[in-house]
Amino acid sequence: MTSAGPGCTFVFGGARSGKSVFAERLVEASGLSPAYVATGRCLDGEMESRVLAHRARRGSHWTTVEEPLDLTAALTRLARDDRAILVDCLTLWVTNLMLEERDVKAESRALVDCLTELPGAVVLVSNEVGLGIVPDNAMARDFRDHAGDLHQAVAERADSVFFVAAGLPLKMKG
Amino acid sequence: MTSAGPGCTFVFGGARSGKSVFAERLVEASGLSPAYVATGRCLDGEMESRVLAHRARRGSHWTTVEEPLDLTAALTRLARDDRAILVDCLTLWVTNLMLEERDVKAESRALVDCLTELPGAVVLVSNEVGLGIVPDNAMARDFRDHAGDLHQAVAERADSVFFVAAGLPLKMKG
Amino acid sequence: MTSAGPGCTFVFGGARSGKSVFAERLVEASGLSPAYVATGRCLDGEMESRVLAHRARRGSHWTTVEEPLDLTAALTRLARDDRAILVDCLTLWVTNLMLEERDVKAESRALVDCLTELPGAVVLVSNEVGLGIVPDNAMARDFRDHAGDLHQAVAERADSVFFVAAGLPLKMKG
Repeated sequence: MTSAGPGCTFVFGGARSGKSVFAERLVEASGLSPAYVATGRCLDGEMESRVLAHRARRGSHWTTVEEPLDLTAALTRLARDDRAILVDCLTLWVTNLMLEERDVKAESRALVDCLTELPGAVVLVSNEVGLGIVPDNAMARDFRDHAGDLHQAVAERADSVFFVAAGLPLKMKG
Repeated sequence: MTSAGPGCTFVFGGARSGKSVFAERLVEASGLSPAYVATGRCLDGEMESRVLAHRARRGSHWTTVEEPLDLTAALTRLARDDRAILVDCLTLWVTNLMLEERDVKAESRALVDCLTELPGAVVLVSNEVGLGIVPDNAMARDFRDHAGDLHQAVAERADSVFFVAAGLPLKMKG
Repeated sequence: MTSAGPGCTFVFGGARSGKSVFAERLVEASGLSPAYVATGRCLDGEMESRVLAHRARRGSHWTTVEEPLDLTAALTRLARDDRAILVDCLTLWVTNLMLEERDVKAESRALVDCLTELPGAVVLVSNEVGLGIVPDNAMARDFRDHAGDLHQAVAERADSVFFVAAGLPLKMKG
């Protein structure tokens, strides 16, 4: 089993690809103390039931933090030599930033910059959303562009990168 | 040339990725007697012309069965030591189950359970649909979730798994 | 660093996957004289700013040609033993052909046929668009089918094929 060694791992894939479970296993296998940063907000029942299912699966030895917007600050605060932090997920974070009209490019840059300096291990999970037909509305296109730019920057910085499909990881870097 | 040896192979990919042709070649290369289970219904002319083109390509030595709903029963009935069965495709099957308001989770579980016990070879083809923007309507999101969950379960059970893009197979397992 | 050797390279991936930058690097690393064939038309400001950003990145030693429709003729005219041509991208070309009601199948076949005979190196970039939910409207489905068929034909003809995601290339052939 691969584990999240000290440093940064990027895990991306489609909806229901098994990327979160794979990322959780990386964190569990690291032997470090696991922490979870949820970027999603429980906007509706559909979302809430997913969040609860994820939490039940991880178990109570995980430290859980909800941070929809100030992800870089949360990571800087949480990171320790003996801790592995799972961020799930970057696309929800980008969505939240856009809804709050934050500067997504600047916030993305700050996140990527902070990754180089964090102690311990961090595993970032994200949705690949750029492999379908061009969306009709401009906001969805902007979202897709922000997500793609962020993925490229995170993957460049990460020590290892996995693309997950049908529950199976494909190592693309590291 | 890779072939579908006894056991279970999962082939998935996007629209017009060449996944069906690749799966047909696996079956042909197995040397076993080929059977085809079509899950699609000829709902309209567009669909019908695709089905006819697929059939013409395969040739008359294939046994062909149409089974939009009771896939597990059809597989159990058809499977033999000397036969390789191609199922094309799982996402159309999920669509049909949803339209008939069947219990997709239960039917998916029954299918995956049956795969362990079938004699001969079976190759299951499916569409990856989770790599675009989140769809607006709830039914499309449910469909995407059902498809993703089924793909993970089938891939876990399968002896080999191929992701096909631009006609080229990428072995992800086996 | 991999380079575009004499012959044909196909690079495909999602929106903002880093496919164009990767393709440009292949061309630069070839040591051949670089030429760029832009198939996109500056229909609106959004598009125009992308085109200008791409052009600024490449630098002035590139020969740039805009050819939204007659791509095969443009390639035949431009190709030389000492030149590496980057075509960006095939999906925009297919879009343009459809808008002009050209015969996409015939034009695609002519393009693929010409690839075998070109001197020097050619790198073709395209968007994978078939991995999301089936689009509602028939024209988007036709587009997806044309793109997928063309990708299969180009990948079959190409000496090397790369799938790019999150800025990372995955070699699928060659």
